[in-house]
Amino acid sequence: MSNPSLLILPGDGIGPEVMAEVRRIIDWYGTARGMVFDVSEDLVGGCAYDKHGTPLHDDTMAKAQEVDAVLLGAVGGPKYDALDFSVKPERGLLRLRKEMDLFANLRPAQCFDALADFSSLKKDVVAGLDIMIVRELTSGIYFGEPRGIIEEGNERVGINTQRYTESEIDRVARSAFELAMKRNKKLCSMEKANVMESGILWREVVTEVGKDYPEVELSHMYADAGAMQLTRWPKQFDVIVTDNLFGDMLSDLAAMLTGSLGMLPSASLGAPMANGRPKALYEPVHGSAPDIAGQGKANPIACILSFAMALRYSFDQGAEADRLEKAVEAVLADGKRTADLLGEEGVQPVTTSEMGTAILEKL
Amino acid sequence: MSNPSLLILPGDGIGPEVMAEVRRIIDWYGTARGMVFDVSEDLVGGCAYDKHGTPLHDDTMAKAQEVDAVLLGAVGGPKYDALDFSVKPERGLLRLRKEMDLFANLRPAQCFDALADFSSLKKDVVAGLDIMIVRELTSGIYFGEPRGIIEEGNERVGINTQRYTESEIDRVARSAFELAMKRNKKLCSMEKANVMESGILWREVVTEVGKDYPEVELSHMYADAGAMQLTRWPKQFDVIVTDNLFGDMLSDLAAMLTGSLGMLPSASLGAPMANGRPKALYEPVHGSAPDIAGQGKANPIACILSFAMALRYSFDQGAEADRLEKAVEAVLADGKRTADLLGEEGVQPVTTSEMGTAILEKL
Ligand SMILES: CC(C)[C@H](C(=O)O)[C@@H](O)C(=O)O
Ligand SMILES: CC(C)[C@H](C(=O)O)[C@@H](O)C(=O)O
Repeated sequence: MSNPSLLILPGDGIGPEVMAEVRRIIDWYGTARGMVFDVSEDLVGGCAYDKHGTPLHDDTMAKAQEVDAVLLGAVGGPKYDALDFSVKPERGLLRLRKEMDLFANLRPAQCFDALADFSSLKKDVVAGLDIMIVRELTSGIYFGEPRGIIEEGNERVGINTQRYTESEIDRVARSAFELAMKRNKKLCSMEKANVMESGILWREVVTEVGKDYPEVELSHMYADAGAMQLTRWPKQFDVIVTDNLFGDMLSDLAAMLTGSLGMLPSASLGAPMANGRPKALYEPVHGSAPDIAGQGKANPIACILSFAMALRYSFDQGAEADRLEKAVEAVLADGKRTADLLGEEGVQPVTTSEMGTAILEKL
Repeated sequence: MSNPSLLILPGDGIGPEVMAEVRRIIDWYGTARGMVFDVSEDLVGGCAYDKHGTPLHDDTMAKAQEVDAVLLGAVGGPKYDALDFSVKPERGLLRLRKEMDLFANLRPAQCFDALADFSSLKKDVVAGLDIMIVRELTSGIYFGEPRGIIEEGNERVGINTQRYTESEIDRVARSAFELAMKRNKKLCSMEKANVMESGILWREVVTEVGKDYPEVELSHMYADAGAMQLTRWPKQFDVIVTDNLFGDMLSDLAAMLTGSLGMLPSASLGAPMANGRPKALYEPVHGSAPDIAGQGKANPIACILSFAMALRYSFDQGAEADRLEKAVEAVLADGKRTADLLGEEGVQPVTTSEMGTAILEKL
């Protein structure tokens, strides 16, 4: 049997430096645990535009379709702000999501004990927080047609279309129920069914799918109330399922509650491939942070934990994922902190690669 | 000259009881300050549906168009959950906003010193917070066509349309810049220009309008980053301008930061009428809270402060608005608290109407 394959797309800004630490971890798994991956690397985002005039070359897209999993760093930067919409760095990421049909975006928002003080929220509100947001990632207003800026009368009109089919809602709802079954059997679905017909259909289909999961306690909440409740008392939630646009905002909000964005991974999963593994892309929740790129200040943990998610969801190596997550926790417990997490007394500042080394030592 | 006219729409749930306290305040202004209002009252929401089979009768709509200002309590309740979309209580509110063309929704998020402990955020993050969100209220995905649930192939598809014309963006941007000029001359505009063409147009038009306000420092932020930054350090903002849907979520989030939803008013303003006053509707940010209705537990302050906003924005009585706001602060400083704000040591629990009485005494 051939080795599992990984396509690494470091991207822009701090992407390459955090991904460099992940590569060391991947190498460790090969040497120490006999889990050898076939790793290839390519461009996405601004750096791909610089080289090819497009944020994602067709060859890269084709490679992404073939591998067992894609690991992505981050895309974007001020250098590309003036580019046309169609070639902006983000389009590379959106194309990957759409063409790989990665409909279920899993975003854990977990508050690490050692870091609870970093949250802008009170410690008792966030300590021990561990929720999972499942965001629909390939449809909705991100991709709906018609879209664009048109002329009408004497003025321009900006148009986007929110569009959800029953089957699109059904499949992401099933992913969320499956996750809920493995966790606390509590699922909250969020939309604006009081204002949007697409939200009405969303609520209906999720309710219908729920009949196949009678053990899961399903609730519904308007997305604005959801934003409020996440802020007020996030521990009332376990798994949340929502659409692409609401998921974008709610998962970022949930991430910020934990106070440590540099720590949070994500997985974007599609349908099973011929080998049974789901199409998959793993990326940190944080962005490309061009202001700190190249200074050894970036926190590689979100990207490393994204690889842990790959071990769990693509390669069925839950125990190895646990091992990696425990190594990260142990390093934090030792007081080692990258620049984004300084401020407390008695902690030890480390660079991006020192953090990688510390995690390797714990492994 | 005839007296200024007010249409009062108490609505559902706690609406009637909080509005009863506002009526006492209005009466006080007549007796003690010689500011007599012509007040009429009517139905909106579930109670209007119960009586007329529609959440807003045409006669009520006509009256709302004629008066100088509308005061609304709250709409909705579980009793109406199963109603068809077209007659849900919310449709009454949405019809008022749309037909009165109330394009600028002003939502202050202010943290009252005496209540800072109620926030789920750390005290230093929210103490002294005073920001203003200007939400576009008559367009965007709330009203765009086509919309609905259609059959396509073998399944249903839910569709909504986000649609913004240049002039719609222009006018709400101007409202926001005008407000920024009266405050700290700092305006942040939020959209998803990285994903939505309507966001690109939004950003362009706001930037263009900004040329007429060179003193205002204008910035742009993606709405997901906006949700994060509001959570991380809300005091970085002064005025925020955003579209209908993002504004729905971001203003609710901002409201929750303050920890005291029962305190927050809002104003929805349209174009000037023949008498120079803007079309206007004032309502508390909180909902109809059917679970506590009729028990004297509701906090009337948000509704009372909405009337203060009416004094300021409809009747040019800034000094009288200040007087009312100071009376509210004085009552809080005395330690009087409705049921939503209990929990601290040494405060004095009061009912809805006792809170009204206490505020009247301070006036
Ligand atoms: C970069 C951007 C296109 C993207 C999105 O809006 O989905 C990002 O915010 C995210 O959440 O992954
Ligand atoms: C009641 C509902 C229709 C409304 C909205 O979505 O605008 C409410 O959430 C608000 O913000 O005023």
